[in-house]
Amino acid sequence: MGIPEENIYPHATGAAEALVAKHQEPQDLVFYAGWFCPYVQRAWVALEEKGIPYQYKEVNPYKKEPHFLSINPKGLVPALEYRGKALYESLVLLEFFEDAFPGTKPLLPADPADRALARMAIDQLNKTFIPAFQRLLPAKEPEKQAALREEVYEALRKFSKGIKGPYYLGEEFSAVDVAIVPWIVRDYVLAEHRGYNRADVSPQWKAYADLVEKRESVLNTSSLRDHLVDIYDRYLRNEAMSQAAIAIRAGRAIP
Amino acid sequence: MGIPEENIYPHATGAAEALVAKHQEPQDLVFYAGWFCPYVQRAWVALEEKGIPYQYKEVNPYKKEPHFLSINPKGLVPALEYRGKALYESLVLLEFFEDAFPGTKPLLPADPADRALARMAIDQLNKTFIPAFQRLLPAKEPEKQAALREEVYEALRKFSKGIKGPYYLGEEFSAVDVAIVPWIVRDYVLAEHRGYNRADVSPQWKAYADLVEKRESVLNTSSLRDHLVDIYDRYLRNEAMSQAAIAIRAGRAIP
Repeated sequence: MGIPEENIYPHATGAAEALVAKHQEPQDLVFYAGWFCPYVQRAWVALEEKGIPYQYKEVNPYKKEPHFLSINPKGLVPALEYRGKALYESLVLLEFFEDAFPGTKPLLPADPADRALARMAIDQLNKTFIPAFQRLLPAKEPEKQAALREEVYEALRKFSKGIKGPYYLGEEFSAVDVAIVPWIVRDYVLAEHRGYNRADVSPQWKAYADLVEKRESVLNTSSLRDHLVDIYDRYLRNEAMSQAAIAIRAGRAIP
Repeated sequence: MGIPEENIYPHATGAAEALVAKHQEPQDLVFYAGWFCPYVQRAWVALEEKGIPYQYKEVNPYKKEPHFLSINPKGLVPALEYRGKALYESLVLLEFFEDAFPGTKPLLPADPADRALARMAIDQLNKTFIPAFQRLLPAKEPEKQAALREEVYEALRKFSKGIKGPYYLGEEFSAVDVAIVPWIVRDYVLAEHRGYNRADVSPQWKAYADLVEKRESVLNTSSLRDHLVDIYDRYLRNEAMSQAAIAIRAGRAIP
């Protein structure tokens, strides 16, 4: 997600603050995070679902520790330090957790073709829904909002058709759910300011979104809304300075 | 890559035509391809490197077989049909080959952290070099060309710093090389029309590009340049109608 604004609240709050407190002991896996970032929440939910031991370190985007920058010059979160190697990119981290901790609960199906279908669903989310969400946030004119809202709806309707129920791949919560749930947790911003309504997507979408946002790993990695509102206010005013926001304004892919 | 123009040459030529002829027998894995498409070449090079049995089927973008559309309504190539399932997205297919054919030559490292580093390198290519390549193609004004050429160079210089040599990950040709080589095979278009020069990127890049384009799997999956020129002429005139070309014009990510 990159660098948001300077006055950002400095740490997780609510349930997420309690979870952070439980993950301060040194571990092989150090998880560099920003409590507000949806890409961070992907990796965090996966760590929790799999029960992988990790040490949580909050990265203040304006006061990055020299050690963090020495292992990860791009300074992006989420990032891991694992046995001297710095790893980042949320979807790469999900794959890494599957590869490095084979004894934990799998988030991808065992069958190779089913794994491919799960990865295709995630790829589509990354290429359609997430950029559409980011474009709708700063849209001010009602007509532009309506057109961009329809893009969000169209992407989610396509996604909804693939939901086996109750979770995307069926009975088991999977990497597909992990990949989308941080934006479900944050869709109230679109509901309050951009006319978005889960029920307007489809009944399937509403049922799915209402379910996954209540998953324990999702609740436990979520901070209080009051602090998120400060961040999203900047997006709504089109003044956000995260790399995602800058890329969207320039008509480029989210880095 | 999607749907290019109607008068496209209907099949592979040169070395690729000979390879297609060897892959006409029915197999569990049916490979739906377009001879001209760089994303197709990724999957094709991987199939060849791994020695996976496959049946090659050329998809004429203007006369798609009903069977192909019935399994893959988006109609995108590269695509696979494997035991009744339709799979697509070139990078998803590379992962699928690793998962489904574990006895074949691996294209990803065995160590989980090294696998993650390889995936990060591929992700960066997809987000930086490839969109920059696609934006430079239709640029007509010299100043715009210079700025976009510099974006290509910057992306490749960053990539070059990670090359262990002779291949990206060292002695073994890997998925990282597979992911970039189709654009190396096609960079003569930028050299002839957009002032691009491998040596201007870096000596490391020139040595690497000169090596990987001569890999047997790459030569064997390459058609004659004469027919590719017809396709790239449309990109250079900014008249291409592939999904990648349309997305670049709209300031959107390549689908």
